[in-house]
Amino acid sequence: MRSTQLSMDTLDRAQERFIDTLNQMDMTQANTMPKPIIKSVTWLIWHTARMLDLQISELNGSAPLWTSEGWNDKFSLDLPDDTQDYKHTPEEAAKVVVSDKQLLVNYLDAAVKLTKTYLGQVEDDELEEIIDESWTPAVTRQARIVSSIDDAAMHSGQAVYTRRLVIGK
Amino acid sequence: MRSTQLSMDTLDRAQERFIDTLNQMDMTQANTMPKPIIKSVTWLIWHTARMLDLQISELNGSAPLWTSEGWNDKFSLDLPDDTQDYKHTPEEAAKVVVSDKQLLVNYLDAAVKLTKTYLGQVEDDELEEIIDESWTPAVTRQARIVSSIDDAAMHSGQAVYTRRLVIGK
Repeated sequence: MRSTQLSMDTLDRAQERFIDTLNQMDMTQANTMPKPIIKSVTWLIWHTARMLDLQISELNGSAPLWTSEGWNDKFSLDLPDDTQDYKHTPEEAAKVVVSDKQLLVNYLDAAVKLTKTYLGQVEDDELEEIIDESWTPAVTRQARIVSSIDDAAMHSGQAVYTRRLVIGK
Repeated sequence: MRSTQLSMDTLDRAQERFIDTLNQMDMTQANTMPKPIIKSVTWLIWHTARMLDLQISELNGSAPLWTSEGWNDKFSLDLPDDTQDYKHTPEEAAKVVVSDKQLLVNYLDAAVKLTKTYLGQVEDDELEEIIDESWTPAVTRQARIVSSIDDAAMHSGQAVYTRRLVIGK
């Protein structure tokens, strides 16, 4: 068995939780930040897709789908392509508004597919390779994969809480 | 590399997020449910520890630590040992109140150690074994492990949102 198989399965569950959550809301609800420090379901899905896209594209040595496949144009957000989502102020987060539910679903799906394709190819001996010396300890390919899967799963749990705050269930 | 290594790493990150979140709060704050449908940080950590404990003990063929190591007595909650946490009503969830922060930290740590010990021993050919026929599709050992890791990670993300709702940051 590949050492990344369980991570692929874990990512599937996060995607399912996001989609199940989104499908209980209309886009006005999904775009709502219930508090300035609680992100919208739209933001959480968009950010998770972009996080996977940017992190895995870097590991993969390919251009992010966000720009190479034109998702930036499809979303047309009032944010630069290199916006640092994870540092977003409430004002920046509030700019992540999407009217087309399918667009959000499709970008998440593209990012998950990119991730699973990469995880289905990466070899064990590549996992220990150091890819980022700017952290202590230096980040290995394995650590970057784990942090990406963890981030997707934890944000999917947050999406459930945002949904409860917005629609009361 | 073991096919469970990345799951162990993912679980470490969930534990770190729970502890970092808890350490920003006093126990009055940690015990607070910000809304009836949003669990307290205490509940989220207790439930994650118990979920890992009960699920992994079953996979492991051992008695849950909750009863076998006397955590039930140490916590002394007004709930039965077989309470179904994941179905808790707001009234039941509100009974999960802990005054001793270290107790909560220690039970989570015991449950994480139990899980990592099990994941460090389980063999690849055991992973596809069906362990629960009551679901469709039937649940394999691998699926139960993945759902446990996913549940821990997603609840750790929820703990961050509960903390923000309770202490405003």
